[in-house]
Amino acid sequence: MGMKYGDPDNPLLVSSRSGARESMPGMMETVLNVGLCSATIPGLVKKSGSERFVYDAYRRLITMYSDVVMEKAEDVEPAEGRGIRQQLEKLLDAVKESKGYSEDTDLTAADLKPLCEAYKAKVKEILGREFPDDAMDQLRGSISAVFKSWNGKRAVSYRRIESIPDGWGTAVNVQSMVFGNMGDTSATGVAFSRNPATGENNFYGEWLINAQGEDVVAGIRTPSPLNEETKNEQNEHLKSLQKEWPELYKELVDIRDNLEQHFTDMQDIEFTIQDSKLYMLQCRSGKRTGTAALNMAMDMLAEGLIDEETAVMRVQPEQLDELLHPIVDPEAEKKAEPIVSGLPAGPGGAFGEIVFTSDDAVAAERDDRKCILVREETNPEDVEGMRAAEGILTARGGMTSHAALVARGWGKCCIVGADALKIDAAAKTLSVGGQTFKAGDVLTLNGTKGKVYAGQMQMMDATENPRFQEFMKLADKRRTMGVRTNADTPEDAKIAREFGAEGIGLLRTEHMFYGAGAEQALFVLRKMIHADNDEERNKAIDELEPFVKRDIKATLEAMDGLPVTVRLLDPPLHEFVPQAKAAQEELAKALGVSVEEIKKRGANLHEVNPMMGHRGVRLGITYPYLTEMQIRAILEGASELKKDGKDPHPEVMVPVTCTVKELDFVKPIFDRVKAEVEKQSGVQVGCLYGTMIEIPRAALCADKMAVTAEFFSFGTNDLTQMGFGFSRDDIGGFLNDYLDKGILESDPFQTIDQEGIGQLIQISVERGRSTRKDLKIGICGEQGGDPASVDFCFKIGLNYVSCSPYRIPIARLAAAQAALKAKK
Amino acid sequence: MGMKYGDPDNPLLVSSRSGARESMPGMMETVLNVGLCSATIPGLVKKSGSERFVYDAYRRLITMYSDVVMEKAEDVEPAEGRGIRQQLEKLLDAVKESKGYSEDTDLTAADLKPLCEAYKAKVKEILGREFPDDAMDQLRGSISAVFKSWNGKRAVSYRRIESIPDGWGTAVNVQSMVFGNMGDTSATGVAFSRNPATGENNFYGEWLINAQGEDVVAGIRTPSPLNEETKNEQNEHLKSLQKEWPELYKELVDIRDNLEQHFTDMQDIEFTIQDSKLYMLQCRSGKRTGTAALNMAMDMLAEGLIDEETAVMRVQPEQLDELLHPIVDPEAEKKAEPIVSGLPAGPGGAFGEIVFTSDDAVAAERDDRKCILVREETNPEDVEGMRAAEGILTARGGMTSHAALVARGWGKCCIVGADALKIDAAAKTLSVGGQTFKAGDVLTLNGTKGKVYAGQMQMMDATENPRFQEFMKLADKRRTMGVRTNADTPEDAKIAREFGAEGIGLLRTEHMFYGAGAEQALFVLRKMIHADNDEERNKAIDELEPFVKRDIKATLEAMDGLPVTVRLLDPPLHEFVPQAKAAQEELAKALGVSVEEIKKRGANLHEVNPMMGHRGVRLGITYPYLTEMQIRAILEGASELKKDGKDPHPEVMVPVTCTVKELDFVKPIFDRVKAEVEKQSGVQVGCLYGTMIEIPRAALCADKMAVTAEFFSFGTNDLTQMGFGFSRDDIGGFLNDYLDKGILESDPFQTIDQEGIGQLIQISVERGRSTRKDLKIGICGEQGGDPASVDFCFKIGLNYVSCSPYRIPIARLAAAQAALKAKK
Repeated sequence: MGMKYGDPDNPLLVSSRSGARESMPGMMETVLNVGLCSATIPGLVKKSGSERFVYDAYRRLITMYSDVVMEKAEDVEPAEGRGIRQQLEKLLDAVKESKGYSEDTDLTAADLKPLCEAYKAKVKEILGREFPDDAMDQLRGSISAVFKSWNGKRAVSYRRIESIPDGWGTAVNVQSMVFGNMGDTSATGVAFSRNPATGENNFYGEWLINAQGEDVVAGIRTPSPLNEETKNEQNEHLKSLQKEWPELYKELVDIRDNLEQHFTDMQDIEFTIQDSKLYMLQCRSGKRTGTAALNMAMDMLAEGLIDEETAVMRVQPEQLDELLHPIVDPEAEKKAEPIVSGLPAGPGGAFGEIVFTSDDAVAAERDDRKCILVREETNPEDVEGMRAAEGILTARGGMTSHAALVARGWGKCCIVGADALKIDAAAKTLSVGGQTFKAGDVLTLNGTKGKVYAGQMQMMDATENPRFQEFMKLADKRRTMGVRTNADTPEDAKIAREFGAEGIGLLRTEHMFYGAGAEQALFVLRKMIHADNDEERNKAIDELEPFVKRDIKATLEAMDGLPVTVRLLDPPLHEFVPQAKAAQEELAKALGVSVEEIKKRGANLHEVNPMMGHRGVRLGITYPYLTEMQIRAILEGASELKKDGKDPHPEVMVPVTCTVKELDFVKPIFDRVKAEVEKQSGVQVGCLYGTMIEIPRAALCADKMAVTAEFFSFGTNDLTQMGFGFSRDDIGGFLNDYLDKGILESDPFQTIDQEGIGQLIQISVERGRSTRKDLKIGICGEQGGDPASVDFCFKIGLNYVSCSPYRIPIARLAAAQAALKAKK
Repeated sequence: MGMKYGDPDNPLLVSSRSGARESMPGMMETVLNVGLCSATIPGLVKKSGSERFVYDAYRRLITMYSDVVMEKAEDVEPAEGRGIRQQLEKLLDAVKESKGYSEDTDLTAADLKPLCEAYKAKVKEILGREFPDDAMDQLRGSISAVFKSWNGKRAVSYRRIESIPDGWGTAVNVQSMVFGNMGDTSATGVAFSRNPATGENNFYGEWLINAQGEDVVAGIRTPSPLNEETKNEQNEHLKSLQKEWPELYKELVDIRDNLEQHFTDMQDIEFTIQDSKLYMLQCRSGKRTGTAALNMAMDMLAEGLIDEETAVMRVQPEQLDELLHPIVDPEAEKKAEPIVSGLPAGPGGAFGEIVFTSDDAVAAERDDRKCILVREETNPEDVEGMRAAEGILTARGGMTSHAALVARGWGKCCIVGADALKIDAAAKTLSVGGQTFKAGDVLTLNGTKGKVYAGQMQMMDATENPRFQEFMKLADKRRTMGVRTNADTPEDAKIAREFGAEGIGLLRTEHMFYGAGAEQALFVLRKMIHADNDEERNKAIDELEPFVKRDIKATLEAMDGLPVTVRLLDPPLHEFVPQAKAAQEELAKALGVSVEEIKKRGANLHEVNPMMGHRGVRLGITYPYLTEMQIRAILEGASELKKDGKDPHPEVMVPVTCTVKELDFVKPIFDRVKAEVEKQSGVQVGCLYGTMIEIPRAALCADKMAVTAEFFSFGTNDLTQMGFGFSRDDIGGFLNDYLDKGILESDPFQTIDQEGIGQLIQISVERGRSTRKDLKIGICGEQGGDPASVDFCFKIGLNYVSCSPYRIPIARLAAAQAALKAKK
């Protein structure tokens, strides 16, 4: 730079900032401009020619420095609203009020000089330390604050959510400053080389005259549009950079083109204009919605900017979720009047109860209540609530505001800058157009259009992005691992096929006993459960067979030509014991016993730890006839379809096994029933016989299991439960403590714990294939649709993953990317 | 042999028998003498000179063959009392009644000839098949029956109880017969080269003139004593072999001496005298009680027959149990009158409700009711009930009867041949000396003396066998692995020290909240559990500290100089929630809230699967102050003892860990508190910091756990629960099915499942020591006192096992034997 920092005759403001910003809340997201002190003020006044500018910069420095370096980085936790920043702003507000000013820019140098002194006194009073009046002290303080912030509470919390390892650490850049707030020939702006919400190839951004970057991002003033093309409802009255300073705009467009060609990706650009001269502050690959990511990837591929493999890598698998998420039903929306409009910051539709704080959003999520987080504007403290909410609505801020950036990163429905809203966070009410809504009232957001409606509106599946299929084809070309679905009904099976499922990896037979339409089957099942002897029990089992056959046959038909893994009855029987008096009476009548007896038999089934109780194959061993009936139902269903010219591929899967002897007990039943069905029907039914691997012991003894099992399917939910000794139903009592205290990096039920549970899986794969070379292995736990878990499954050589229908495209893309990464 | 089987002119009766006999109920325990048929009868009459003898042999053959080969081996299951044997015996009884005979021996050839024909007709009628009238058919049938019986229900059940692998299989011996029942110059007998009940070095046995071996063993006739020295109350009026035929007795004594010198062990001998000539049928090492095993081992060592190592191997560890089991209090016994006396067939004392069938005994055991199985005589069908009963009492049979042999093998209290008893099994009553007892009434047995008392008598610990300590010293000389105890109180610790415990491997802190005397501590604990906020909670924790310190300090003192592993609080808190109204009210008052609120807070702690819920270190992470208090209590207790000149060695053990981060969370608390206590007291307290390995994930990540942990202790109960997915509380719903159907060979909570759970243990040991070479590793699950598990722990290199006080000698001996086996 050739300039000496701290030189009073030639003062230099420098900015220290961390390597991560919006991507890491809590991580020094405010750039710290330091270097102003009694020694350097006169020099800077001389240099800038404006005493007002210098004292305003001084005021800002005191605010930010005391807030970030002296308070937050020291983990001082002031009471709500009692932070140093708020207290300093009160001093500012008092001066504005006494002078009758409406804007900060109304303050003169004469106002600002004593205000800065008052600020410094306040800092001393509140924080007990002097604001440092030395350029070098300020620099040292701000650098160390950046490093400290890596271990701050919010940063740690964010890393936990995003599964970012603590070990990465952070860096600090120190650079000399240019000023967008040096007067009306100065300005600052943020831009994206393409539209980050839609992916459209237009130059998109916002700027403010006489402002610093912080002003644009914080959403305190509504920023102006960068160009005419991208004006919107909120800023169409404001002058674009294109119109205001066309030459500077042209220069910026050239730079944008240059950067995109160089980085072959959409760039997030920050610039400042100081005294009519354009400076680039930084650029990096920009965050984008899933829709934008997909559109840009396909556009850039068409433009020849990137190749097919790069295009496939450009969309994060999780982002596809947005494209598959519900939107507000357009027909319903036509008939409704929005209560307010804002900027469409996050795509899709959402409805939920109004909550006004991040904590309330988190609480609602824990109670399984959908909610919309409504805030004046959001800040990094709100990140957890934003994550928990179905949608986010703010009254202030633009498309690059904190709320918009975060929501977009997650593909979450979000509307920002709905400035007609009057929010009273203390009273927990929201007023607009004469209507008042309180916490708990329901709103619907259309995040794609920026419209807010009162009440709950009809949702529907996203109309498919026309380029989605095209993109998925590119992905499938690279993919080598199969993707199946977990589906229990023909309806789910059909949806899953549309999403590209290559079979069913898990059909839970017990599904047929849940919910509407299942009453009759459930009643027969209960007769079986409450039977007193084998005769009664077997009679009920015989009665049950038609229900089981009907159900499985329909799903086999929906998956015609593709494999369907049917899991034998899994849950402990007491799950089905009737609790309602009427149901108990009906059952008592059917069995010819008293209601007391029914209750007693039900109570006898109670277990202390049902997850490790009498369930899965254990039921099948106690009641072999139950096993036989299920196998018969599956094979008869398949043989009937085959006779009708269909092509069913059933696979019988035995759950909760811990030793091959369990498989060896069921296998002769399977063989005999298969022979009987084939003889009776005259049709050969191909059917694999395999097992879940969901008990640690089964994983360790996989070599033996594979002697009898023709396939394995990892039940990673149970494997995680037993492997960790974590009951999924009870983990709520300590999971948050474990995440907060850094004992777990992420919830092991959401993403496979590769360090521990992953070992069990890997051991199983190796040992299973050591016995049976062509052993087919898949996974059917919740994590089958989690990209990191899919990547792990690919690495250890699984044949397929199986996940819920809506996760299938995500799993397909994750599998394709895993294959591409392995090639490198 | 030079003779041809089936040759009608020179007929040969042969005997086919399995390789296992009393040791395997269900396994062809009846020797089958075959070869009699219309073709061979005349030849045998000529040879023996007695038509009566031949037809009686024919009658016996039909009985046994139809019973064993045609009925049992085919798994034909007749109704109770409707078996072929009973039906044939009815025919016999009818003839005896019509002729006025009292003994079988009264029947003449003229009686027996038509009876044999009637027998054959009955066999045809009942079993639908002809009794085979061909020597070769009989031989083939009986050989194949032996092989079939290996898979018979009773044999399988017995193997399960004794953990004998199914794969062993059996053999068949075919040998030509000699007859002890060829008249009054013939006899048969069973003998032990030393007394199998006490170990005394005297020749001990029983014999019967004109009888077959079966007659001695079955206990139908009271056998005569072998010699004068060993006569007892039951047989003192009968003539001993020594007196009757002194020369034959002398010949037998010489053979006995010869055999013992050759085999250097006590021999179980069977002999037959045919026409005044002595034949040896078989010999093998004899079964013996624990007392006898120990005494014989020490005697033979003194005699120079065996060396020290052999002596140590001669006692099965489980047999020591008898020496440690309760006996009837001699003082109480002095004042009481026995209702009846019998032979002292199994040592020690027992009391329990009278049951009359094996099934009732099994049912009583499942309900946790102690019972005495009372039978006319026992047979292999009774084995499960004999196992389940506290004691066994029979009206018939001698010291070598089935009941006596089986009870002795198990070291179970047993009295046989109490022939004054009148048992009505159908009415379930028992009469003696004018008194009548019914099922459910309580009896007390003194198995060492053969006395039976009405009602429950005081029991006391076995007075120590004077040679026990001597024997244990020999064992300890060979032992290399440590043996500690699981003990929660100073009292237990003292008992354990007396039994040779080398420290405490598991002290459960929660013990102090259970039972009498714990009310005050429990009340404070409940205040903590029901606290609403950290302040309330921490106050209760402070209040709790004195209780914890007092308790642990006392146990540390009792174990002075030896290590004491203290496990931090383990169970889920809702275990302590008050259920009684009075307790709820008291607690409500103490906390100043309503009873409703107390109930609500208690209910909030409910968990679906508490075993995998909020417990162990998870509590310590949610409430770090609770952890801190416990560590402080332990270290302060130790430091106070040290100041008093004692030598405490506490070890802090963190339970239920699944990742090293949990250990890393608690470690700084441990370090800080230790520094504080040492500074305050001015005393250095040595204290190891380690963890339970009881979660599969912890086992798999043992290399990481050992970075922080200075010792491991395997909690094999939980490791088995999680590894198998078996809840110990709920396994009752299917364990018996699993054992009956051969899916499990033994209960994995009783003996370590080496195939599966053993892998987790082995992996932990290898990985743990790969990080920390001197890692101390022990085991503190229930299986720590199981000999097979001790052997496994030795093999994989554990430093110690820890078990309940009464199992310590067993563990010491098992560890010594493991070391000796490894030397070979």
